[in-house]
Amino acid sequence: MSKSKGHLVIAQGGGPTAVINRSLRGVVLTALQSVKIGSVWGSLYGIEGMLKGRWIEMSAESPEMLKAMGDAPASALGSCRKMLNAEESAQAVDFFKKRDVRYFAYIGGNDSMDTANKISQAAKAAGYEMMVFGVPKTIDNDLPHIDHCPGFASAARYYAQSIIDLAMDIRSLPTPISIMEVMGRNAGWLAAAPSLARENDDDAPHLVYVPEVPFSTERFLGDVRKAYEKRGWVIAVVSEGLKGPDGTHLSAGDAAARDGFGHVLPGDVGAFLAREVTGKLKLRARSEKPGLIGRACAMLASPVDRREAEALGRFGMKHALKGNTGFMASLERVSDDPYRVRYQAVDLDKVANVERLLPMEYMNKERNQIVSSFRAYAEPLIGGPLTRYPLLEGFRKNRGKR
Amino acid sequence: MSKSKGHLVIAQGGGPTAVINRSLRGVVLTALQSVKIGSVWGSLYGIEGMLKGRWIEMSAESPEMLKAMGDAPASALGSCRKMLNAEESAQAVDFFKKRDVRYFAYIGGNDSMDTANKISQAAKAAGYEMMVFGVPKTIDNDLPHIDHCPGFASAARYYAQSIIDLAMDIRSLPTPISIMEVMGRNAGWLAAAPSLARENDDDAPHLVYVPEVPFSTERFLGDVRKAYEKRGWVIAVVSEGLKGPDGTHLSAGDAAARDGFGHVLPGDVGAFLAREVTGKLKLRARSEKPGLIGRACAMLASPVDRREAEALGRFGMKHALKGNTGFMASLERVSDDPYRVRYQAVDLDKVANVERLLPMEYMNKERNQIVSSFRAYAEPLIGGPLTRYPLLEGFRKNRGKR
Repeated sequence: MSKSKGHLVIAQGGGPTAVINRSLRGVVLTALQSVKIGSVWGSLYGIEGMLKGRWIEMSAESPEMLKAMGDAPASALGSCRKMLNAEESAQAVDFFKKRDVRYFAYIGGNDSMDTANKISQAAKAAGYEMMVFGVPKTIDNDLPHIDHCPGFASAARYYAQSIIDLAMDIRSLPTPISIMEVMGRNAGWLAAAPSLARENDDDAPHLVYVPEVPFSTERFLGDVRKAYEKRGWVIAVVSEGLKGPDGTHLSAGDAAARDGFGHVLPGDVGAFLAREVTGKLKLRARSEKPGLIGRACAMLASPVDRREAEALGRFGMKHALKGNTGFMASLERVSDDPYRVRYQAVDLDKVANVERLLPMEYMNKERNQIVSSFRAYAEPLIGGPLTRYPLLEGFRKNRGKR
Repeated sequence: MSKSKGHLVIAQGGGPTAVINRSLRGVVLTALQSVKIGSVWGSLYGIEGMLKGRWIEMSAESPEMLKAMGDAPASALGSCRKMLNAEESAQAVDFFKKRDVRYFAYIGGNDSMDTANKISQAAKAAGYEMMVFGVPKTIDNDLPHIDHCPGFASAARYYAQSIIDLAMDIRSLPTPISIMEVMGRNAGWLAAAPSLARENDDDAPHLVYVPEVPFSTERFLGDVRKAYEKRGWVIAVVSEGLKGPDGTHLSAGDAAARDGFGHVLPGDVGAFLAREVTGKLKLRARSEKPGLIGRACAMLASPVDRREAEALGRFGMKHALKGNTGFMASLERVSDDPYRVRYQAVDLDKVANVERLLPMEYMNKERNQIVSSFRAYAEPLIGGPLTRYPLLEGFRKNRGKR
């Protein structure tokens, strides 16, 4: 058990989610109640603010604000996409040491867990007693050693509900093909999520394409034609991260944009594929790309996701207060019915920079549709039924005879 | 006062809205209660189903269904983009005559009002006593002789709320430029709507571009740079219908798609402009395009819009039952505070094919922002306050010092 008494720095890294501030609240409120912790400092814009000494005093915020921020989308402290190298990690520890920071919590995804891990190791190397932990968040759901990542379920709920709404619209139109682009650079979890809207074979989405499966535009066009001939309308879900057989991203753009890590950014594959369908199949198609709205729509956040995101923050802080370091707060599913999880710690070493991709057991043989076993995994997470709308009996019976 | 007793045909044309089925419900329930009307037939896929004799019996639907369909997005009867010429209009009247149809209601926008007008005239020319009326709907808000069009307020609410959510996300990111594309082929009403999210000059959207103003990419890039230098983050709203000084649509695509009327379809201007910003300003930008989700999101429908859409359907049917024909059900605003409207009929002759564009008095001199007078017009329509989220005091104070 640690004897440390010192300050806490907390930061948020990577892309936000609809519930990331619940995790922030979980950590901050737990820390503010602990006699072991002096000040609770929020680092602005992730690790970057920390290195520049731009911290805010969380106890200076009103209790109402600390409560209310938990339900706000986006990262309340701001975020960054910077990863630390070994030298910067040593600098950070030096920085912490000078200010008597004994706790560091980083809420983030793969890259942020790597940074937390480097800082934890640098503290050990410097012989500085300090508790470092990660709190997971990512709509991509691609962290290992956790049943599912906070943030995923809310984005999943958003996309599944949006597909229901979109399907109502599309099937009432004369030219009913839509390509919906969902987020997910490498992992297809979010592209799988709209399938929660499917109750029968006629329901959208009719086709699903994930980054894990090498993408062929020719095969895609064949799939769309077949689906159109079968039903007279098609909604296809495509991940923004689709890659061709050579591993390069599909892109509608000329100049590929790059992020802070130098990765080529995916570019509007839905728009590109809609033009391919219109041009080559002579079937008019359009695309929808809710983009960041899919993770920022707090109104559609999953109540289960909210609860778990906060609990992970609380668990992490409590575990650190017991003298543990170098871990990520995690959760394991212990029961499907009733749905129950258990909170636990996993070593950052095991988590950092490992991506958990969508298992192919959740896809059909043709790799263009999600199978029903995915529902058992994802449905308990989205927190209650989606809003469904009736079709007039007369419309339903005449469907297809356009 | 007409002595007619006969059947009613009702159809829905053009793009759906979140409340178009409220108008359908208003007409159908009023008609089903009238002793003057025999059968109430819904024509599938707009005027096309009517010409093919594909009608469904609305009284065969359960009362629960007729109620529930009113809250569903999309066109419950299906839609089309067909316009009738004079010959087809005469055929339609012939068709009606043979089946003793004495009432025809068309719920739609400009093109649908034109079709209703042609049928009304063809009936008069054929000496067939028949009541023809239009019920307005269009998210574009571009019908004349009506204060605002049903469907607009719900899409406006969707976009305004989405901008609030998006702004939370964008300003917490390291590379904070987003171009949000909104619907509207020729009219900028919907592009103006997100401005309802603005409470002060720092709030998004920071720039707004509408189809009524000839678009210059060069000037746009200058505006974005200036806005970025001022605040460190930018959200620009662009209408899908932006046109260059020569009147052609901006398009990110190679092969311009065309609709049923032969109009070139606008193509992903948000994606195109985000690439321009990234490539030419060396500021990483992204785009969001909720597309049809913006008009299909029933959850964000305006309660005022719902009520008025249904009331217009009821008013239209009642007015037709009094023996009136060749009119569009309309509404006039009689008071801003409290907000009140009056229902009335306007001649289809005056409405058909006339587009009401966004008045330039709602824009600033630079034509890149909406001014506050728009709020007085639009705010009462969206039906209650938007959901706003707090920013941490410490974050707000440090804003800009990234």
